[in-house]
Amino acid sequence: MHILITGAAGMIGRKLTERLGKDGALAGKPIEKVRLLDVLAPPKPENTKAKVETVAADLATPGEAAKAIAGRPDTIFHLAGVVSGEAEVDFDKGYRVNLDGTRALLEAIRAIGDGYRPRLVFTSSIAVFGAPFPPSIPDDFHLTPLTSYGTQKAIGEALLADYTRRGFCDGVGIRLPSVVVRPGKPNKAASGFFSGIIPAGLARDALGPRINLSMPGVCCTVAEQIAALRRIAGDRVAGRIRRAEDALVARIVAGWPERIEARRARALGFKAESSFDEIVRIHIDEDRGGTFVH
Amino acid sequence: MHILITGAAGMIGRKLTERLGKDGALAGKPIEKVRLLDVLAPPKPENTKAKVETVAADLATPGEAAKAIAGRPDTIFHLAGVVSGEAEVDFDKGYRVNLDGTRALLEAIRAIGDGYRPRLVFTSSIAVFGAPFPPSIPDDFHLTPLTSYGTQKAIGEALLADYTRRGFCDGVGIRLPSVVVRPGKPNKAASGFFSGIIPAGLARDALGPRINLSMPGVCCTVAEQIAALRRIAGDRVAGRIRRAEDALVARIVAGWPERIEARRARALGFKAESSFDEIVRIHIDEDRGGTFVH
Repeated sequence: MHILITGAAGMIGRKLTERLGKDGALAGKPIEKVRLLDVLAPPKPENTKAKVETVAADLATPGEAAKAIAGRPDTIFHLAGVVSGEAEVDFDKGYRVNLDGTRALLEAIRAIGDGYRPRLVFTSSIAVFGAPFPPSIPDDFHLTPLTSYGTQKAIGEALLADYTRRGFCDGVGIRLPSVVVRPGKPNKAASGFFSGIIPAGLARDALGPRINLSMPGVCCTVAEQIAALRRIAGDRVAGRIRRAEDALVARIVAGWPERIEARRARALGFKAESSFDEIVRIHIDEDRGGTFVH
Repeated sequence: MHILITGAAGMIGRKLTERLGKDGALAGKPIEKVRLLDVLAPPKPENTKAKVETVAADLATPGEAAKAIAGRPDTIFHLAGVVSGEAEVDFDKGYRVNLDGTRALLEAIRAIGDGYRPRLVFTSSIAVFGAPFPPSIPDDFHLTPLTSYGTQKAIGEALLADYTRRGFCDGVGIRLPSVVVRPGKPNKAASGFFSGIIPAGLARDALGPRINLSMPGVCCTVAEQIAALRRIAGDRVAGRIRRAEDALVARIVAGWPERIEARRARALGFKAESSFDEIVRIHIDEDRGGTFVH
């Protein structure tokens, strides 16, 4: 098994790399080679027996996508992208990285031809949805993004589905909910996103042609998150939180969905934590060695 | 009022050109200039007082989109595109014309800047939907096209919505149902698609951010169409129909929706014929001078 991870230096890329190193195999096959790609070369992981290459490249630059897949990886995790706020501030950069980069990768795969058909996992986002919403967003709800980032992700999903339908790749798009960023070293906590893909290989038959899946998440308000922190870590820790408004973030988040049904993803084996209390406890256990400053 | 029509040589382009010539005005403003663009120069209409320019150009060719809008048209009808069957057979051409051409037009508009913000009407298609479907497709049903054409139209819609949201243009996407092609000269029958846009100008406030609208249509089977023809034109005319299978067309159409709710479009004033009998009668009256060969 030969794996390529784009955007490997990001939080999810690092967690995924660590998880793959720990597992040593993907979809029942031993991992022999991992290529980690990002605009700046990602750090080499320590815990893997596989041959690791790190590459600094921008997929949107002509020729770079072809070079990135010249080794014909069996599985590609395409995580590379400009985040929501940056794509909204820099229109050109967002389209270049999130749309042109993704399309260049798909085109490079198609150009190889001769039966090459890698599994391609694309991280999309709940930003493909845009307000107003029903109380809970069903799997067949339309995509009306209210950010350029959400638009670029929606287009990436559409391209992935068409290239998969045409037989150029074997794609699956996973719409990540808001990721609670944890400081410190990567850990397995957030790799639950990949739980349906990594152990099972996620059979093509079970997916069908609708390859883009909304992921389950923990639905809670920021006030509920703070309450969970207070329950577990006490008043002094929760008291350190300071409210700082950011108009751009506020406007972007106002158009985001609050509750996702994610029935298909759950049926396919994707899982979320059961409560925000659990997220806080995992953070303390795994990122902070079971303790914290009271 | 200065108008640009891309894809002006196609059936809808010709019917729209004729309709605009007859009306002499759009959204209450007299039409002074019409630029008709297609890959082969469209014919000049006879019924207009406006200054007409015909242009042979391919919007996907670098620089052509900028030239096409150099006169800063107030309203652009972007009808240009490769049709469903051709986009399925020629993958590169479909993406080049339907995706790159549309994006080039949007980018050319954005590049002008200085407050230029034309009304941009984009003809999309019900091919943005893909089976399996509910009995009737609601306005908030997700887009899961099963053709490259449908994918390209879905991406065009997403780009149009984002460029509109960012203030670069004032877009509206109209998803046309299957268009019953009539032979002979253009006539007003099919221009019902434009009825909501042409007289009212379709206020931006009524549209909101969800600018892509599924159009109402007459829902019927081919057998019902033949029955309507038999009722109106008799057994001998209906008896001339020969069944000829086409595997590509059959596969494409199998993934198309059968019934569209189109509540938003109806509320905004878009109308369809009330029955297929009416479509047959209009065809006889307007394309065949009220008679036909029995």
